[in-house]
Amino acid sequence: MPEGASAPAVPAVIGDSEFDRDTAVTRRAPGVYDIDLSAGWTIISAVNGGYLLAVLGRALADTLPHPDPFTITAHYLTASHPGPAVVRTETVRTGRTLSTGQASLYQYDDHGNEVERIRVLASYGDLADLPDDVRTTAAPPAIPPLERCFGAEDGPAPVEGSSAIADRLMLRLDPSTLGWALGAPSGKGEMRAWFGLADGRDADPLSLLLAVDALPPTAFEIGLKGWVPTVELTVHVRHRPAPGPLRISITTRNLAGGFLEEDAEVWDSEDRLVAQSRQLARVRLG
Amino acid sequence: MPEGASAPAVPAVIGDSEFDRDTAVTRRAPGVYDIDLSAGWTIISAVNGGYLLAVLGRALADTLPHPDPFTITAHYLTASHPGPAVVRTETVRTGRTLSTGQASLYQYDDHGNEVERIRVLASYGDLADLPDDVRTTAAPPAIPPLERCFGAEDGPAPVEGSSAIADRLMLRLDPSTLGWALGAPSGKGEMRAWFGLADGRDADPLSLLLAVDALPPTAFEIGLKGWVPTVELTVHVRHRPAPGPLRISITTRNLAGGFLEEDAEVWDSEDRLVAQSRQLARVRLG
Repeated sequence: MPEGASAPAVPAVIGDSEFDRDTAVTRRAPGVYDIDLSAGWTIISAVNGGYLLAVLGRALADTLPHPDPFTITAHYLTASHPGPAVVRTETVRTGRTLSTGQASLYQYDDHGNEVERIRVLASYGDLADLPDDVRTTAAPPAIPPLERCFGAEDGPAPVEGSSAIADRLMLRLDPSTLGWALGAPSGKGEMRAWFGLADGRDADPLSLLLAVDALPPTAFEIGLKGWVPTVELTVHVRHRPAPGPLRISITTRNLAGGFLEEDAEVWDSEDRLVAQSRQLARVRLG
Repeated sequence: MPEGASAPAVPAVIGDSEFDRDTAVTRRAPGVYDIDLSAGWTIISAVNGGYLLAVLGRALADTLPHPDPFTITAHYLTASHPGPAVVRTETVRTGRTLSTGQASLYQYDDHGNEVERIRVLASYGDLADLPDDVRTTAAPPAIPPLERCFGAEDGPAPVEGSSAIADRLMLRLDPSTLGWALGAPSGKGEMRAWFGLADGRDADPLSLLLAVDALPPTAFEIGLKGWVPTVELTVHVRHRPAPGPLRISITTRNLAGGFLEEDAEVWDSEDRLVAQSRQLARVRLG
């Protein structure tokens, strides 16, 4: 493994890891969950959108009779900050194989009033119940082996300021999507990386919600600088991921009018397309 | 133009057309809209999901301070039927350039109780305010000219029963995605067509919501038969469409576990990628 990137001697496990502790919600009442949003999943000062989606996803998993998000959409309304938050969930419909729910995350203004940060609409099912019929025609991304990819520790910090999330992740970028970090963006809206959690915890359906929003923006490779805030993010979780690192490939093909889309595919160690997502994000042009 | 497919002598216009009349909602009170869902947009006996999304989209456009759906997600909970329905909308947040809203469509059970059919979460903006900076790298689909494509009137009805929606649309399928109608599906998850409204009305942002769900299922070309119900549909409307027919290209790459995704791209006559959508749908295997 690359120097400085050794897996911990005893890897964390699903249920007992940084990700689980930092996305844990405490049920105060039916449909009401408290959490202290961690400062450990920020990029510069912004709390990562995928981490936030995983928090909401965990609350919904507790509320609904089905455990796994099959399709989950979030609209990001106002910027979240580390600190106290409350998630309020609603059961929209329960069915035999699918249930639908809604959830909102709120934080508090200076007067203690709740301000909505994110609203989510999602349908859940049980991935374990799906037939094992796979006719996927998509193919895993062409990404070099992990040891030939590069992480933050391999070079100077490409962005100023705190990127606490970098310490939570094992992220190794494809060198062909790293030009931005060396002042030479490729001009192509692509980003590819190997992805895992720094404490060694394997992926699960909830951590896939983090994974799809954990890579640097494709905008950087297009040559744009600055923040690319997510307006909306929709994730389809299609299969429980196998243990081991994930490969994530993100593509942007429609940068226009001050917006762009990022399409992410997440592949597991068994070459399964375990999640697909699309987000609509705002860019600063020029 | 193909025989039997002449445009009307006086084309309908945006605001005065079958589509506008059949998606019109009557505001009964703030956030409460009534409609009689038309039987004219059914495929077999199911009311088309894109038509339903356009109805909800129109109600939200009335509720919110911004006119155009930028990103809109619908979860289809129970099957809708022609007849009375009510749409209830909620403003989630209003901003300078974007507003977010939520909407639900209900119909009535035998006791007159409201049963939720669809729930929607959407962010709206004003397409006219977007800068004209276009860096789209996607390319329009390779589809033969309209006169070399084929519509329902060119062959025997491929599906039994009423398909009233066929009379509302000008739909001309790419012959290379028509094998299913001739008993020889290609095996590839693709569907391509020229699309317009039968009465000649040009496309607008709301009719794009119909367009992305108006083609036959890619599942037919994969060789599957039967209904492919939509669980969730998310549409990004990225530009006001130019007048004239649209080209729609739909792709499925991840048929697995009894579900598939359909990715649709909608291109206008000026070669702009005016809308992108992804839906998650259930398939019957075997």
